[in-house]
Amino acid sequence: MGDQYEVSEAGVEALPVPSLRWEERAEGPVLVLLDQTRLPAEEVELVCTDVPALVQAIRTLAVRGAPLLGIAGAYGVALAAARGFGVDEAAEALAGARPTAVNLAYGVRRAAAAYRDAVRGGAAPENAAAAALAEARTVHTEDIEASSRMAEHGLALLGELLPGGGHRILTHCNTGALVSGGEGTALAVALAAHRAGELRRLWVDETRPLLQGARLTAYEASRTGMAYTVLTDGAAGSLFAAGEVDAVLIGADRIAADGAVANKVGSYPLAVLARYHHVPFVVVAPTSTVDLETVEGSDIEVEQRPGHEVTELSLGYARGAGAEIVGGIGVAPVGAQAYNPAFDVTPPELVTAIVTEAGVVSPITRDGLAEMCSTSRWSKSRSGNGMMAE
Amino acid sequence: MGDQYEVSEAGVEALPVPSLRWEERAEGPVLVLLDQTRLPAEEVELVCTDVPALVQAIRTLAVRGAPLLGIAGAYGVALAAARGFGVDEAAEALAGARPTAVNLAYGVRRAAAAYRDAVRGGAAPENAAAAALAEARTVHTEDIEASSRMAEHGLALLGELLPGGGHRILTHCNTGALVSGGEGTALAVALAAHRAGELRRLWVDETRPLLQGARLTAYEASRTGMAYTVLTDGAAGSLFAAGEVDAVLIGADRIAADGAVANKVGSYPLAVLARYHHVPFVVVAPTSTVDLETVEGSDIEVEQRPGHEVTELSLGYARGAGAEIVGGIGVAPVGAQAYNPAFDVTPPELVTAIVTEAGVVSPITRDGLAEMCSTSRWSKSRSGNGMMAE
Repeated sequence: MGDQYEVSEAGVEALPVPSLRWEERAEGPVLVLLDQTRLPAEEVELVCTDVPALVQAIRTLAVRGAPLLGIAGAYGVALAAARGFGVDEAAEALAGARPTAVNLAYGVRRAAAAYRDAVRGGAAPENAAAAALAEARTVHTEDIEASSRMAEHGLALLGELLPGGGHRILTHCNTGALVSGGEGTALAVALAAHRAGELRRLWVDETRPLLQGARLTAYEASRTGMAYTVLTDGAAGSLFAAGEVDAVLIGADRIAADGAVANKVGSYPLAVLARYHHVPFVVVAPTSTVDLETVEGSDIEVEQRPGHEVTELSLGYARGAGAEIVGGIGVAPVGAQAYNPAFDVTPPELVTAIVTEAGVVSPITRDGLAEMCSTSRWSKSRSGNGMMAE
Repeated sequence: MGDQYEVSEAGVEALPVPSLRWEERAEGPVLVLLDQTRLPAEEVELVCTDVPALVQAIRTLAVRGAPLLGIAGAYGVALAAARGFGVDEAAEALAGARPTAVNLAYGVRRAAAAYRDAVRGGAAPENAAAAALAEARTVHTEDIEASSRMAEHGLALLGELLPGGGHRILTHCNTGALVSGGEGTALAVALAAHRAGELRRLWVDETRPLLQGARLTAYEASRTGMAYTVLTDGAAGSLFAAGEVDAVLIGADRIAADGAVANKVGSYPLAVLARYHHVPFVVVAPTSTVDLETVEGSDIEVEQRPGHEVTELSLGYARGAGAEIVGGIGVAPVGAQAYNPAFDVTPPELVTAIVTEAGVVSPITRDGLAEMCSTSRWSKSRSGNGMMAE
């Protein structure tokens, strides 16, 4: 079950509270999420006491963003274990809640593996649950560190690509503290540039249909004091044509072994525009987003979401929306059919560089990507030896 | 002053009533507009009894679309003349109501010239007013005929470009009966293909920020029985990548002498995507949209519209929006800055063909465009000899 309570604002950090946290309460552990469907109008926390509530939060995008989904998935398994629910069923429900972001299944797998290893080793249920929680905390901690490393590597890359400084960065969807235990992926790089005094302008694609750019990236940019401007996704072309974009920085929901990048729908048109205008197109994502078992872009399953996200305007997140507004407001004629893929796939030949916590791959090659993943700490976690590489 | 009344639906034509009509009433003539800000939720007519009301209707996009703006401008001058207001002031206010669509100034100029010619010829005020109205009716009639010719030429062009038939056409913004005395420009071609049994699918870009695609094109497509699907502007890239687009058909607000095309923001990204995917990008517009005095694309003034169109959701047109919702609903954080150009400019090298009532120019050259305009009936009207060429 999910409960909600309001958050009071504090400070000028990207977020007033963490996007996700584990809390031990008298009545048992809970997972507390900052409800992303309500931002920026309201800062409300959503308390999940069980896996069905978390699955619903994932499906409705109350919690979203590839790295954060990995953390949420891992904690979800730990929650099921701690509360005495079936871990296998929980893992299956969580991993299948959304199909495209590979991090979700990855986080689930790690916590579930830790639980099963403990059980196989003869641990009592509470100790196996503790092992799952410890693994979830590790996934969380790794993400915080990965975010910080990506920001460093990305900032250095921007310095190489754009030696003049004064970067004008175009971004799409939301890739900041809201998607991460740390400061995020692409937006963490922009924030690093801002702190280094090198961000002249953050161009924020509104990112239809769910407006994660206008709502969430603008919210984080506003809180951290970045110079930012919101635009419709279609207006990005005018910016490129006017020479107002120095680089595109986006995140990823899955990166195939050939370097094809699945990311929020609308990313691919930016990649084509960037190529046409000779502007670098840079993808920032942890190595946990790279799925070497997905051979190429066409193998990536793209989530198709309900058409009403396009044909109706959702007002749950809107300022000034009274309680009388429930659900969406129709825009298209009644019965209009909509095409609503959540993601698109950018082929590797349009990607200038992929920045991960383990470094930068550029140009994009299958071998380069595999090599970077093999040297990352997460690949060692993956292989199950539990060793942490520095 | 503008009054409003509801329209009852009738038939399966693209519109229940004309997008614009002149009516002689006992209290004087009026211009009756189908209010496009309220569609598709409500079919409401807006009655303009004077030029300030019409200027406001133009600025708020109650009446919009390049050809229709030309007609509205001409009738606006006739309205001022018939009601005894200053024609020069009216012409100036109307021509300046929106800067990009050249048709508006063109329609105004024609009716005002007819009025002034009559005055110079010694006509009494009511006869000069009648001359202005006659010229407005001519502009209107020419547009109806131009629309029909564009549909013919466009359909023939599609047959040449896509000999296999079963066209899957992507369009942007609204270019149908709502922008015309006839059936429009690009959408008139799609409708002709539909009637010829050759339209497999009309892909309708929603067209942020004002959703003319999701609202108006979907409305016309729905009424005329086209197989259509609405999508976010950013999802067009996925369609191209999947090979689901056979041609792009768009209108134009101004075409420069070099063939650069100003059209609704978001058109240029489609042109770049079309080029990248070797898909024809076809512009359909009457020759009155070609402005030979605008030397090239960079000379076109692009209207910048208020940021709140992006940062807030306007609900005036939404189904189910109660009377309690006034103005927009905030989406981005309070104080967010927005970049909101109404149009973008596609350079001639990305345009496969320009279809006008006088024929098709392809490939796009300055000479080809000038020659087509010189043979059009409208260029003769322009030159003032009043002769109609067939």
